[in-house]
Amino acid sequence: MEWTREKRYLPYQDWDADTLMHLQAQAANSPYQMRYHLHPISGLINDPNGFSYFDGAYHLFYQSYPFGAVHGLKSWWHFKSTDMVHWENLGLGIELDTMADSHGAYSGSAREIDGKLFIMYTGNHRDENWVRTPYQIGAWMDKNNKVSDKTILFKNPDHITEHFRDPQIIKENDTYYAILGAQDKKEKHGHIDVWKSQDLKNWEELGFLDFTNEDMGYMIECPNIVRVDGKVVVIFCPQGLDKKVAAYDDIYPNMYVIADDIDWENHKLINPGKLHNLDHGFDVYATQAFNAPDGNAYEVSWVGLPDTTYPTDDENWANCLSQVKELHLKSDKLIQTPVKAISSIRKNEASISNQVVSDQAGQQFELELTIKANQSDTLHLAANNDLSNSLQLNFDTKNGKLVLDRAHAGQKVAVDYGESRAITLSPNHDLKLDIFVDHSLIEVFVNDGEKVLTGRYFADQTNKKIAFAQDIDYTGKLWQMQTIL
Amino acid sequence: MEWTREKRYLPYQDWDADTLMHLQAQAANSPYQMRYHLHPISGLINDPNGFSYFDGAYHLFYQSYPFGAVHGLKSWWHFKSTDMVHWENLGLGIELDTMADSHGAYSGSAREIDGKLFIMYTGNHRDENWVRTPYQIGAWMDKNNKVSDKTILFKNPDHITEHFRDPQIIKENDTYYAILGAQDKKEKHGHIDVWKSQDLKNWEELGFLDFTNEDMGYMIECPNIVRVDGKVVVIFCPQGLDKKVAAYDDIYPNMYVIADDIDWENHKLINPGKLHNLDHGFDVYATQAFNAPDGNAYEVSWVGLPDTTYPTDDENWANCLSQVKELHLKSDKLIQTPVKAISSIRKNEASISNQVVSDQAGQQFELELTIKANQSDTLHLAANNDLSNSLQLNFDTKNGKLVLDRAHAGQKVAVDYGESRAITLSPNHDLKLDIFVDHSLIEVFVNDGEKVLTGRYFADQTNKKIAFAQDIDYTGKLWQMQTIL
Repeated sequence: MEWTREKRYLPYQDWDADTLMHLQAQAANSPYQMRYHLHPISGLINDPNGFSYFDGAYHLFYQSYPFGAVHGLKSWWHFKSTDMVHWENLGLGIELDTMADSHGAYSGSAREIDGKLFIMYTGNHRDENWVRTPYQIGAWMDKNNKVSDKTILFKNPDHITEHFRDPQIIKENDTYYAILGAQDKKEKHGHIDVWKSQDLKNWEELGFLDFTNEDMGYMIECPNIVRVDGKVVVIFCPQGLDKKVAAYDDIYPNMYVIADDIDWENHKLINPGKLHNLDHGFDVYATQAFNAPDGNAYEVSWVGLPDTTYPTDDENWANCLSQVKELHLKSDKLIQTPVKAISSIRKNEASISNQVVSDQAGQQFELELTIKANQSDTLHLAANNDLSNSLQLNFDTKNGKLVLDRAHAGQKVAVDYGESRAITLSPNHDLKLDIFVDHSLIEVFVNDGEKVLTGRYFADQTNKKIAFAQDIDYTGKLWQMQTIL
Repeated sequence: MEWTREKRYLPYQDWDADTLMHLQAQAANSPYQMRYHLHPISGLINDPNGFSYFDGAYHLFYQSYPFGAVHGLKSWWHFKSTDMVHWENLGLGIELDTMADSHGAYSGSAREIDGKLFIMYTGNHRDENWVRTPYQIGAWMDKNNKVSDKTILFKNPDHITEHFRDPQIIKENDTYYAILGAQDKKEKHGHIDVWKSQDLKNWEELGFLDFTNEDMGYMIECPNIVRVDGKVVVIFCPQGLDKKVAAYDDIYPNMYVIADDIDWENHKLINPGKLHNLDHGFDVYATQAFNAPDGNAYEVSWVGLPDTTYPTDDENWANCLSQVKELHLKSDKLIQTPVKAISSIRKNEASISNQVVSDQAGQQFELELTIKANQSDTLHLAANNDLSNSLQLNFDTKNGKLVLDRAHAGQKVAVDYGESRAITLSPNHDLKLDIFVDHSLIEVFVNDGEKVLTGRYFADQTNKKIAFAQDIDYTGKLWQMQTIL
């Protein structure tokens, strides 16, 4: 079947229900399907959207194209949770029922305002000549999860191209601000554009965020500003960034900058630091973060990349979300840790110290390890019996190095961008790893969240072994994880 | 919208995907929706089907009509679990793709045979004059959950009407037996019909099961035979049963009989006892039970009744399944207890002893109580602040009585069959209750499962209080329950 433009933008009404049910069953039955991470109910998902706290629960949406593993007509799909681990699948959240989002309800954010959830997102509209207008839309969701009163707030100003999207709604000093990814018309460079409003109706552009002297490439997507431990963190996705400005491995990186503060009126960061990679693995993009009423900042990422094919495309579904992480700062670096409730889905705890961690671990587990200093070895995950096929973590705690290698882990993904990812560690130190595996997703938290390596892999699900290549000195615990969706 | 026959039997291909997505969202967002019991993904569900253990997991299907709260064109929807509490929603399980199930894949059972799951069910076929033939179909599901090789095994023999359905497949003495609900042509009475096969292909009718001298009404649906603690238990649903034969309150009861053994060749129970109600609440029907490889017998019920409307019909969805229960015998009575894993979804444990159990319990909890002897009072569940609106448990531990009363619990259900259900207890004894509430479902296990009262109720979800009417002597524990679907 060829995915023509016409087919990708076919209204949902023109698809039949039997096809959708078969696509849902196909996604649900895939051996690669995640069982404790948010994943597609059918088709392709991408950016997390509307991550917020409202009416006593966390709300999280994702970009959804329900009819195949392509970027077609996108709507929002809605999930709700009290602990950010157990999610209710509430189904279609924002549908396409206005001129302004006729060609997709693109990414956006949400926050509780006066007893309702205010949702701000980019409506993708194209005219009969396929010329795009990116409308920034406001909508209100009530406590019964009904979305209404969609209003066009503003569209791209004259100096910005059609690439103007992903508004994050923020309230500070009794004023609403929105930041958006934008491309200026003159230089065709990527920026974070800052807007302001007192009433959520009348919006005024303040200008591009001043946070770096470097060229950020041709576009910035999914900008977020959160306050973390007294500082300001800007998380964003530059496209076309020169690797001399900041090194990265994926097709597009997800970066962050830490600043002392933000001057909203002058749209500038106060004393911004340099660019860092948010994740050191393979597939993290479009991370969304927000400041929750409990005082913490939380983030969740799309695990999937634009312009990238994945093996499950053949099964008509693609991608997933990361687990939710709590954000903190330590020595001017972002610390990302699992939310506490993740431990509530652990089961069958086993203490481990042998070379063979488990013959029957399967691919739905958490593995917590402390590897003593001055050793180097390979930890094989999702491994077959002779360890020839596995997802590898190669570590050297003498010289301080950790490599996640998916070259021998089954079906290949995006090999042009390399099959391994390396980070440096303090030499001659113990190494703490908290590893989450979920069938085709791995998340490795290094030294209590100082670095995180996330990635998809596509191994034979009968590969159930976890083992070190050699007998090394370590302690650890292994848990099976409950299925939660 | 009128549910004409034509509309109810419209092929799934003729519904549009947008409508299905809206129905799914509507069911998911309902305040009455269950959050830790199997419930409709959309539309109406009824009988549990194919409850079995296969390839290292429990499998459970239900009858599903995805497009509204009516009994339309039914298929099977598939769930899988390792603990019978956390379920994976695997979607459409048995679809309608042969002449024999052209008008519905009706109820049936499953068991693992030679590395595959053999599924035996009733294909509902109607000809152009709407004349029905009930085909008994065999199908095979592989470890990737693909169903294939559907074969017609047999249809109703000459002496049985079109009412011939719900085969349970059993293996004993190296022989396969199937029992089915049947109506004989001559007397139009309900029976359990016994068949036998050596190869699952050639089937021979042995005759009606001899288990009672009483008239069982005009039809028996959903017969099950399980071995429990050395005896044989027959669970079934007689329709039109004279209340002089056995008392019951619902439109149709779900009954059971215990016997010392079964003589398959002579299709008779050895020393059968009298009929008992399986459940003493309101809405239990079509219970399916099987003997699992772990040595236990398990059952799960449809919580919903034929020919009955429910308030959620207005929201286009209806009914749910009970939790899975383990079966045992004690003094020739069936003991039904929650499976052990249900405790794995408890959270926020609170010890309780006050008159007001909780102001904020909500309607997703487990409540374990021991009420001392010689007291009578009312326990209000899902109650508003002044207790004028609540689901009531009226108990008298002096005279030995317990009444579940839903008369003041919001929207009404099947009031012609009474709004309360009463059981007798041993007088002057402590009363142990294990109560599970899930938004519009209550399950009360009395004295460690000696009796169970299950029922739907439709109270305002802002009614969060649990309280006794008076200060009484009791101890207990209260847990919130995790959302698992």
